[in-house]
Amino acid sequence: MGNTWGHSFRVTSFGESHSRALGVVIDGCPPRLSLCEEDIQKFLDERRPGQSDLVTARKETDRVIILSGVENGRTLGTPIGLMIENEDAKPEEYSEIQKFFRPSHGDYTNFAKYGVRSASGGGRSSVRETVARVAAGAVARKILEKFVPDLHLVAYVESVKDVKLENFDPSFLRRENVYKSLVRCPSEETAEKMMELIRRVKLEGDSVGGVVRGLILNCPIGLGEPVFDKLDADLAKAMMSLQAVKGFELGSGFQSTQMFGSEHNDPFVMKASKVGTLSNRSGGIQGGISNGEAIDFRVAFKPTSTIFKPQQTVTEDGEEILFEMKRTRHDPCVLPRAVPIVEAMAYITLADHFLRHQRCLLEGKNFYEKQSSSSELNF
Amino acid sequence: MGNTWGHSFRVTSFGESHSRALGVVIDGCPPRLSLCEEDIQKFLDERRPGQSDLVTARKETDRVIILSGVENGRTLGTPIGLMIENEDAKPEEYSEIQKFFRPSHGDYTNFAKYGVRSASGGGRSSVRETVARVAAGAVARKILEKFVPDLHLVAYVESVKDVKLENFDPSFLRRENVYKSLVRCPSEETAEKMMELIRRVKLEGDSVGGVVRGLILNCPIGLGEPVFDKLDADLAKAMMSLQAVKGFELGSGFQSTQMFGSEHNDPFVMKASKVGTLSNRSGGIQGGISNGEAIDFRVAFKPTSTIFKPQQTVTEDGEEILFEMKRTRHDPCVLPRAVPIVEAMAYITLADHFLRHQRCLLEGKNFYEKQSSSSELNF
Amino acid sequence: MGNTWGHSFRVTSFGESHSRALGVVIDGCPPRLSLCEEDIQKFLDERRPGQSDLVTARKETDRVIILSGVENGRTLGTPIGLMIENEDAKPEEYSEIQKFFRPSHGDYTNFAKYGVRSASGGGRSSVRETVARVAAGAVARKILEKFVPDLHLVAYVESVKDVKLENFDPSFLRRENVYKSLVRCPSEETAEKMMELIRRVKLEGDSVGGVVRGLILNCPIGLGEPVFDKLDADLAKAMMSLQAVKGFELGSGFQSTQMFGSEHNDPFVMKASKVGTLSNRSGGIQGGISNGEAIDFRVAFKPTSTIFKPQQTVTEDGEEILFEMKRTRHDPCVLPRAVPIVEAMAYITLADHFLRHQRCLLEGKNFYEKQSSSSELNF
Amino acid sequence: MGNTWGHSFRVTSFGESHSRALGVVIDGCPPRLSLCEEDIQKFLDERRPGQSDLVTARKETDRVIILSGVENGRTLGTPIGLMIENEDAKPEEYSEIQKFFRPSHGDYTNFAKYGVRSASGGGRSSVRETVARVAAGAVARKILEKFVPDLHLVAYVESVKDVKLENFDPSFLRRENVYKSLVRCPSEETAEKMMELIRRVKLEGDSVGGVVRGLILNCPIGLGEPVFDKLDADLAKAMMSLQAVKGFELGSGFQSTQMFGSEHNDPFVMKASKVGTLSNRSGGIQGGISNGEAIDFRVAFKPTSTIFKPQQTVTEDGEEILFEMKRTRHDPCVLPRAVPIVEAMAYITLADHFLRHQRCLLEGKNFYEKQSSSSELNF
Repeated sequence: MGNTWGHSFRVTSFGESHSRALGVVIDGCPPRLSLCEEDIQKFLDERRPGQSDLVTARKETDRVIILSGVENGRTLGTPIGLMIENEDAKPEEYSEIQKFFRPSHGDYTNFAKYGVRSASGGGRSSVRETVARVAAGAVARKILEKFVPDLHLVAYVESVKDVKLENFDPSFLRRENVYKSLVRCPSEETAEKMMELIRRVKLEGDSVGGVVRGLILNCPIGLGEPVFDKLDADLAKAMMSLQAVKGFELGSGFQSTQMFGSEHNDPFVMKASKVGTLSNRSGGIQGGISNGEAIDFRVAFKPTSTIFKPQQTVTEDGEEILFEMKRTRHDPCVLPRAVPIVEAMAYITLADHFLRHQRCLLEGKNFYEKQSSSSELNF
Repeated sequence: MGNTWGHSFRVTSFGESHSRALGVVIDGCPPRLSLCEEDIQKFLDERRPGQSDLVTARKETDRVIILSGVENGRTLGTPIGLMIENEDAKPEEYSEIQKFFRPSHGDYTNFAKYGVRSASGGGRSSVRETVARVAAGAVARKILEKFVPDLHLVAYVESVKDVKLENFDPSFLRRENVYKSLVRCPSEETAEKMMELIRRVKLEGDSVGGVVRGLILNCPIGLGEPVFDKLDADLAKAMMSLQAVKGFELGSGFQSTQMFGSEHNDPFVMKASKVGTLSNRSGGIQGGISNGEAIDFRVAFKPTSTIFKPQQTVTEDGEEILFEMKRTRHDPCVLPRAVPIVEAMAYITLADHFLRHQRCLLEGKNFYEKQSSSSELNF
Repeated sequence: MGNTWGHSFRVTSFGESHSRALGVVIDGCPPRLSLCEEDIQKFLDERRPGQSDLVTARKETDRVIILSGVENGRTLGTPIGLMIENEDAKPEEYSEIQKFFRPSHGDYTNFAKYGVRSASGGGRSSVRETVARVAAGAVARKILEKFVPDLHLVAYVESVKDVKLENFDPSFLRRENVYKSLVRCPSEETAEKMMELIRRVKLEGDSVGGVVRGLILNCPIGLGEPVFDKLDADLAKAMMSLQAVKGFELGSGFQSTQMFGSEHNDPFVMKASKVGTLSNRSGGIQGGISNGEAIDFRVAFKPTSTIFKPQQTVTEDGEEILFEMKRTRHDPCVLPRAVPIVEAMAYITLADHFLRHQRCLLEGKNFYEKQSSSSELNF
Repeated sequence: MGNTWGHSFRVTSFGESHSRALGVVIDGCPPRLSLCEEDIQKFLDERRPGQSDLVTARKETDRVIILSGVENGRTLGTPIGLMIENEDAKPEEYSEIQKFFRPSHGDYTNFAKYGVRSASGGGRSSVRETVARVAAGAVARKILEKFVPDLHLVAYVESVKDVKLENFDPSFLRRENVYKSLVRCPSEETAEKMMELIRRVKLEGDSVGGVVRGLILNCPIGLGEPVFDKLDADLAKAMMSLQAVKGFELGSGFQSTQMFGSEHNDPFVMKASKVGTLSNRSGGIQGGISNGEAIDFRVAFKPTSTIFKPQQTVTEDGEEILFEMKRTRHDPCVLPRAVPIVEAMAYITLADHFLRHQRCLLEGKNFYEKQSSSSELNF
């Protein structure tokens, strides 16, 4: 259970790191949408390990295969089956972890829940599972590109441990500027410091975490379904369902607790004959519904659990031991690869809410267009 | 859409602040469970406004009525309908807000989404909607009390603005100690400071926010459904779906990003012949599944949007205006009343995952009991 | 579980015959739809017992109360709570059935499933539960009346035991002609014979069943979601979920098994520049999707289980006994009252599929309009 | 939408006749269940075309591949991905049907719904789609074999056109006896007549339909979820969602409308200290819940739409034409292959309800065991 996301754009994920394949079935994609494997592959490539010395050296080609739902480069409206075969699975590398529970991994809890242990230790807890999310995200993106062409969604690494991009104005942030950086930070100077830190940590066999910030510009107004399926609630769930995530903030986040209401409220103003806000501490969502300002969220990733230092743990038989992992292919910092994954989950969440919102627009698009997002954005 | 929570314990909520009633239908409650109106009423009373000078003076009696699903004090296994009538609805008080959009409320977005404005301005964005959550939470609690009698779930106010309960050891935290405090902080000294701050802010017509911490002790091991419905992902959604919440953290939260992996990992140890961890930076959940240690989360509430100072906004006709709300019944700080609401959402989430997990236990309880939670907990 | 119907138009039902109230929560209704209690009441009145000597003499006023989701006669887009209080509940009448299991009722199975017995014997197996369906059907009807004004949905009693309306041409069937008949058969002559039969059976303390035929004229083309949620599959489920229903047929139904393919296929022809079929053995649905011809289905209702003759059964303690029910208020024939219930379920099913289909129409209504239903219909 | 079945045993299907593969993702299967490809393959082989001269000559090897969710022959509790590649797809054979709409196929409605036409004409309307159902059914069967070992589910061909198996006593019906017959009728004599009819019809380029009867012996008591998800309602939907099905009956079915209540009611009796019924006109389900007697249902399949005689239709451009299909690989009678498909859908439906029912059994199996099905069954 729990492998399906969404209500109107439904994503069902499957696959372990060491099964024959991972993949996803997408139900609810509108018909007649242009889609080919390359549309998906380019985002899988951004997620793939082995792109630089900063991330794991595993050579996963991660080729997506469209199994169904698309003919002649167009969606049929039927379920889209996507598959990524596990070519580089080397179960033997994991043989040692079969004997004990790796600290702060999902090894122990998966075993406790299911009473059976998968070859890779943690079953579907592995980050490898996110290929399915990225593939589904690419399809969600196609929907939004067609029906909300102005929408611009981009995430970037805001901090790696204590190296933080400060005073950054995202008004002119472009996705290209993020992805030309190996560490996926739009400031060259900060990126350099982050990479330096990651390289040093890698050398020490240790790991670090950090914060990814996500921004959605020109989001249609009105997305989000009160009361339980608020847009921010679903974004929080989307991000917290990712490996290694320990926290989520919208707009002012935890910082909001340090302010007075009179400082925190976002005054409404007219922007080019449209309603907007003067500040954006709400983070683009009010009452669980998008208000047209930039949706602005932060996701906290803990340091990767896999380290190459002596650690204490217990075996399946309940023996306390000290162990040290052999140095293998693992990321000392998950942040750079997390960026396209965060984007994919945001796209999936948005596509679902975009389709769900249609019932409010049955009388024509006029009302909706009047409420289209404002042109001057705040952060 | 979006008014139903849960998969196996399904909660469907309805009602506006000014409709005839609010309520909830609960589908999936096991049969033969002891349940009466008083079991629910006591938690509604904890949530009710007007309990002290710290919170809104509205006199809502909030009497719950069981409409169905219970006979002779026992659940029938059929849907439980609960209703709370809106006795103290005074639409005229809201007449002024009909003309403009209150900053940082849901007024504007609800109007933009639905194209129609409810009497109270924000439709189901009002905190009043949470009576349904608290009522459903009381039913969820009965399930867990019966089938997981050791479980202890409690939330408390950790901080109000910059007044924070520091160095608190929750090992011996009891719900009674929280609820005997008007501000729902278990330390008398800190509670005093918080109340002082709230009273001062109220006098100024301003508002403040803060942090609620939630703890679940002796949670069964194995709850949570990878990959999307991880237990922490669902808790995050549950909390982010509450009014005024801007952030969620599990265990080490955003602080985790400041640590090395070697500092952050929780070593496994044996505790009285059961597997446990030496520290609890994981917050009781690993790989999205409960590990038997204390589930430990934090929820950031922004300062209440309703303040009694001049503010800038726009009218429905797009005119920019300055306005000042007449002093009426509103909380200067939502934190004390948020505590039972946070607990209710945690109970609803747990009950759902408890019932979902049963499919892994079909072969008998032996395997499961072996994995029961450890006796010494860490925070 | 199992008390919610639909995907995009979601109906959650609650209430037993002897609980405080029955009702329904409807999530997914579009906003700004005209709706008042009278819009619902008129259909509840058609379903109500005690309308003639043909049906049970219970005086249930069955007044619907709108609890939420509607203000100033318009839907808000939020969940619509509807409640019908149980005024005339007389548990003492049922005291005798508490001792044994009534044959062919749900008494035994409900007790076996839930391990607890409701006052009325069969919990939610009672026909009384259908007030919630009829109330929800009235709301579904409002949606279709607004967005598909040409649609005409009507059901009628085709047969009562061996009294059957033969060679009937439904081309000019109007709902008024059905409902002016006490037995809800549009032919006065056949209706007379049916009533005669029902009166005779009532005198004998026995019961009879029959067939209700449902017709949906001018249904939009394209409704239905292959593969599992085909429109006919959902209609079948909707009808089979009703009390006393033993069979469902679409179009040619079981009779189709007596034909050759060359006799059964419906040739496509052009009708006023639109695609139609020459015959309608398909019953308006092909491949699970509506084709614009009349949707034509039949529902078999068994004779009512409650009779006033000696019967054999067992008690809760496993004793075999002979019993005879005291003559109370019960229908000797459920057919007349079943007609508005069948219509309600058809409306609920259609409204859901109408809303689900919107994702295929995102590019504008042009494509859709080209496919609007043909003007000459076949049966 | 509409490609997922079930609540606790969730089956998500994908694939067209001419896509790269068809398949299914199963979420909710309990862990530690023995499962290998051969467990699934044997049922796919029963469904496969080309097994005799009675059915289509297409050589589809239909090899199932387990993509995920299983390791070392045991289920992991994670989603099970199953794939069947489309090896024998010959799109050119379908090129002629691209120009017009085949009568009584899904060609026209799929085109009207999605605005795009798949290579095979009818997209997912093709019977080929049922490989996914049969594969999922095989997994459902493993669950029931383990947890309800006495359960015996079997379907057979009761009639082909007017050749009907009369006066058959299914008390000692065994699956082997059905499957040793090419036409899947347990009486050799009737089977012979059916085959003769089918061969004659094939020669004439025509087609015939018939009735499949399904029986479930020793079903646990208590399965089914009132009010909407009654067990019979879900079985009806399961069967009506199959290609070419026009009708569904439970127990006495349409015949029940010809009886008096005093003839139709099933008296309760004690059978070896368990509650049972003397007759089984209820068909094993009362009030939507299984009562322990044989679940007994009938499914009407119309004659196959594909025939090789001149037929009238229209082209995509709205031209009326006369056409005759080239004799290709098509079944003149779908009944023999329908038998394993009906069984698969019954297994999927039962497995789902079995898992859903667990919430009523949380207090231990004692109550449940007392209610186990009776030993003497009626038909």
